[in-house]
Amino acid sequence: MRAVDILRKKRDAAELTHEEIEFLVDGITQARIPDYQAAAFLMAVVWRGMTRAELAALTEAMLHSGTVLNWSDLPAAKVDKHSTGGVGDKTSLIVAPVVAAAGLYVPMISGRGLGHTGGTLDKLESIPGFRVDLSLEEFRHVLEATRCGLIGQTPQIAPADKKLYAMRDVTATVESPYLITASIMSKKMAEGIDALVLDVKTGNGAFMKDQDDAEYLAELLVETGTRMGKKAVALITDMEQPLGRKVGNAMEVAECIEILNDEGPADLRELCMELSAWMLALGGRVKSVADGRELAAEMITSGQARDTFREVVRMQGGDARVVDDPAILPRAKFTARVHARRSGFVSRIQCERIGIASMVLGGGRERHEDSVDPAVGLEIHKRLGDVVAEGENLCTVHYNQDARLVHAMRLLSESFEIGPEAPEPTPLVRKIIGAEGVS
Amino acid sequence: MRAVDILRKKRDAAELTHEEIEFLVDGITQARIPDYQAAAFLMAVVWRGMTRAELAALTEAMLHSGTVLNWSDLPAAKVDKHSTGGVGDKTSLIVAPVVAAAGLYVPMISGRGLGHTGGTLDKLESIPGFRVDLSLEEFRHVLEATRCGLIGQTPQIAPADKKLYAMRDVTATVESPYLITASIMSKKMAEGIDALVLDVKTGNGAFMKDQDDAEYLAELLVETGTRMGKKAVALITDMEQPLGRKVGNAMEVAECIEILNDEGPADLRELCMELSAWMLALGGRVKSVADGRELAAEMITSGQARDTFREVVRMQGGDARVVDDPAILPRAKFTARVHARRSGFVSRIQCERIGIASMVLGGGRERHEDSVDPAVGLEIHKRLGDVVAEGENLCTVHYNQDARLVHAMRLLSESFEIGPEAPEPTPLVRKIIGAEGVS
Repeated sequence: MRAVDILRKKRDAAELTHEEIEFLVDGITQARIPDYQAAAFLMAVVWRGMTRAELAALTEAMLHSGTVLNWSDLPAAKVDKHSTGGVGDKTSLIVAPVVAAAGLYVPMISGRGLGHTGGTLDKLESIPGFRVDLSLEEFRHVLEATRCGLIGQTPQIAPADKKLYAMRDVTATVESPYLITASIMSKKMAEGIDALVLDVKTGNGAFMKDQDDAEYLAELLVETGTRMGKKAVALITDMEQPLGRKVGNAMEVAECIEILNDEGPADLRELCMELSAWMLALGGRVKSVADGRELAAEMITSGQARDTFREVVRMQGGDARVVDDPAILPRAKFTARVHARRSGFVSRIQCERIGIASMVLGGGRERHEDSVDPAVGLEIHKRLGDVVAEGENLCTVHYNQDARLVHAMRLLSESFEIGPEAPEPTPLVRKIIGAEGVS
Repeated sequence: MRAVDILRKKRDAAELTHEEIEFLVDGITQARIPDYQAAAFLMAVVWRGMTRAELAALTEAMLHSGTVLNWSDLPAAKVDKHSTGGVGDKTSLIVAPVVAAAGLYVPMISGRGLGHTGGTLDKLESIPGFRVDLSLEEFRHVLEATRCGLIGQTPQIAPADKKLYAMRDVTATVESPYLITASIMSKKMAEGIDALVLDVKTGNGAFMKDQDDAEYLAELLVETGTRMGKKAVALITDMEQPLGRKVGNAMEVAECIEILNDEGPADLRELCMELSAWMLALGGRVKSVADGRELAAEMITSGQARDTFREVVRMQGGDARVVDDPAILPRAKFTARVHARRSGFVSRIQCERIGIASMVLGGGRERHEDSVDPAVGLEIHKRLGDVVAEGENLCTVHYNQDARLVHAMRLLSESFEIGPEAPEPTPLVRKIIGAEGVS
């Protein structure tokens, strides 16, 4: 088998066999196949797409390039949630302890933020002492004790994805639903889970601006999961405005603690309850999604989810006092306000721009190698459809450096559009993909 | 400027600027841009194609990656011919001395054979002592003395093409008419010529099996040449059967000497006269192509072309006696015959298969690094439409190794299809592209 012949086949839109895809992925991972052939393959996939069988083969080959975790000795189903990324998207810190408190295992391996989107690991690391770089042995220990754990990718998990992702980043081949699916699913399947709930964001703050694209990606994700013998469902959710009121690492952790204390913004709570309900239903903990909603809510009102979160923070080396006293979290030195230029209704929010403003303040990364400032961020006071008066505060900026503030303010002043009428409200969960047979 | 942004633009089918293409080509040539980005770019070009402006920019950037020869002090126009490659395609060895004898300069830089096609350099090297690796100083010296010279590519000529061609070869990106055009034209324009005649082959023995594809390539070649301020014309010529009667390096040299002696097969002579006539017309040596035909024929019948060829061979270190005594050329030890299985007319010739049979005998290369056997080859006795009797010799195989013969015979026995009727004869020159304003 020669890589160039496989490239030619893909270029000419022929279907690759399982063996050919395995040959490529193994060769790329072990550096037997040079980077330039990997790059040509990726661009050919962006061009020609993949059949479902090719996609399953690619995902499987990437999955088996590394360790697949095995928790079969743990006495309940293992489930996880994955989001395609958004602004203020902090649900992992809530759904993991909620579902774990309800009795299932959540062995969650997360990523860092990039561009306008935040990342779970960056948020967690704003908790003093919190370690996301646990060894797999330490991970198991936390999981056994609390039923959930939140770590970063290890070198043992899907090394093919690490290699291919780095290559996609520099060859303009990131935006392929097939490559996105294989990347997500190979890592998630390596967690050794039984079921996965996907939160596929759509709207101007998401990678998929267009709902059709989001739905197509969701179908690929669900079908690939199902082909690999796992339960999977995808929620297409709205990202036309930030989720919750806070954007920024420590600020988002504080908001999650609000929710775990049965407080906090309704939209964030609603989405967390939906995601948790589906996880509980797919994991067999409850008979229906409706039952799942009830059980998830109970985990909040009873304080059990908060107790689980406190224990996870403690076991992963973090200062567990933050859960009861979020004031311990890092705070920015200064604040500034974004004033409304006219009166009316918030008719549109440029959500991606808000994410970029947070990044500019230091809360996110332009490049993988950048470091983040855990303290900075934004507090959004007005949401779509809200009434505003001229001069009213739309958003409070928490910042540490004047120079960064200037750039962020320029972005934010244009992010809120105010019109004479309130827009039609849209549902937070727009559609559910792959729910056949589950109610 | 960042390579990844240019890749994204091309991927999304936007037109690249002259500066962006120059940035890429310079970066790739000087290894500032890594191979994987070059590979992704090439695949994106195969996918998206190029506008004429992009193609001209690419060709120009590749041309200026190296030396552009300058013969402006030589007192006549400089012209050349380029063929896209075929089986038995040996016209360079004839047209160069014909046109030089008629008064124009022909500074020809040629390539080696690959796959089923032969290469001018391999043919020349079958002449004992002939050197194709002249320095540019030596090349000028031969050119001044004889008005023609035949050498291989030097490292100074279009190094970007060398780099890109090697990359295309291993990333399945050879078959793009845009990349083919930029590769051919950057090298040919570097010869410092005023006019170029392109012989674009089509038929089952050519790279472009389909005449539409051949015509499209021809248009790109001619338009690119014209945009770069050179005269250019393309002849779409038939490659449904080998050109002439001989296939194989020394055997083809001998056949060229037949033509130069006013003998040899009619089809080969006809094509050489057409190509020479166009070169003479575009180079301004004659007023019309008809006059060019006359002058070219005169160069043959007078023996002047043969004398020029003899002198070129001598000056490039070859044994000039071959011109008068071709028996000096290397000869294979053994011969075998391919017998007709039935009586009838030759209805179809699998021309590519014949080229591969010659390669298998040792006359060509499967890979760039292979060496060739100058002596082996094929003598084709029957052409399309010829009457054959069962058992008659279709083709004599000249070989040196039994093992190679077995494989070649298997290919050849299936190469001649014999039917009850002669096929419609097709013209050798099927179409002329870019002849506007020349008659």
